[in-house]
Amino acid sequence: MKPENAILLRSLLETRPVAALGTLHDGKPLVSMVPFAVFRMEGAAGFLIHVSGLSAHTRDMVAHPDVSLMIVESEDEAETPLAIARVSIACEAVPVAHDAQEYGVIARTYLKKFPEAEPLLNFTDFHFFLLVPRSARFVAGFAQAMTLGADTIESMLETAN
Amino acid sequence: MKPENAILLRSLLETRPVAALGTLHDGKPLVSMVPFAVFRMEGAAGFLIHVSGLSAHTRDMVAHPDVSLMIVESEDEAETPLAIARVSIACEAVPVAHDAQEYGVIARTYLKKFPEAEPLLNFTDFHFFLLVPRSARFVAGFAQAMTLGADTIESMLETAN
Repeated sequence: MKPENAILLRSLLETRPVAALGTLHDGKPLVSMVPFAVFRMEGAAGFLIHVSGLSAHTRDMVAHPDVSLMIVESEDEAETPLAIARVSIACEAVPVAHDAQEYGVIARTYLKKFPEAEPLLNFTDFHFFLLVPRSARFVAGFAQAMTLGADTIESMLETAN
Repeated sequence: MKPENAILLRSLLETRPVAALGTLHDGKPLVSMVPFAVFRMEGAAGFLIHVSGLSAHTRDMVAHPDVSLMIVESEDEAETPLAIARVSIACEAVPVAHDAQEYGVIARTYLKKFPEAEPLLNFTDFHFFLLVPRSARFVAGFAQAMTLGADTIESMLETAN
């Protein structure tokens, strides 16, 4: 990957506030919006989302853990909407139990990016999921598309600020 | 729907440049980015997208016309990322043949919003699809979600500027 594209991709993963989550809903795709935070620990890196157990996408992820997470560049950065950079990451959605050993560090990581979410952590029907990347399609701009392996995404997540 | 929410929804449909398209890809959801334009003609209203026949989402739409289109408010408008307004619209993707009677008006409608796309119209492997709304889930802000029927979305599309 060209160095400038690596910088762009890392910026998408690190700085964007929300992503589009694609789940399988009654056999059809469903896209919803999710705030996300990058999470790294020894042996694992991925995207944290915090979702309501009552929402469709949460039920979908439990039934079908294969999801798609798309992160899009700010439209202010692109010359034209057609050239907005974006990355679509195929992920496996892994639920985080409220009594999991890593729950505390997961909650702190998420709240560092979204302190305003703190009241939601008191609701027992809200849950963290870790979206573990499997592969990705990165479009750095017009006619600049590339397929990336899980190792490329993970190494970016592990070494990012 | 409250009048302020109707104004917000109409603004999302009319003014946002791109949307997140969810398709069914090898049995899994795939989210990609698409520029879109609202299209209205007698007896039909929906969202126009212009896509490459070589891309995954185009093959997906041909195989499985049930798609999800999510349009998200500009993050600059929301107080927090958690409250960004968005609408997820379940649509049926209908391909537009290059020799269709309405091709000219469709191309003009799309180019009015994206004049920079004109060179792409000369590529024979680029195609318009009309995404016809079937139902929608509109989140106007935090804890303000509502389900909308196709008639509500269509009437907004038909009467918008």
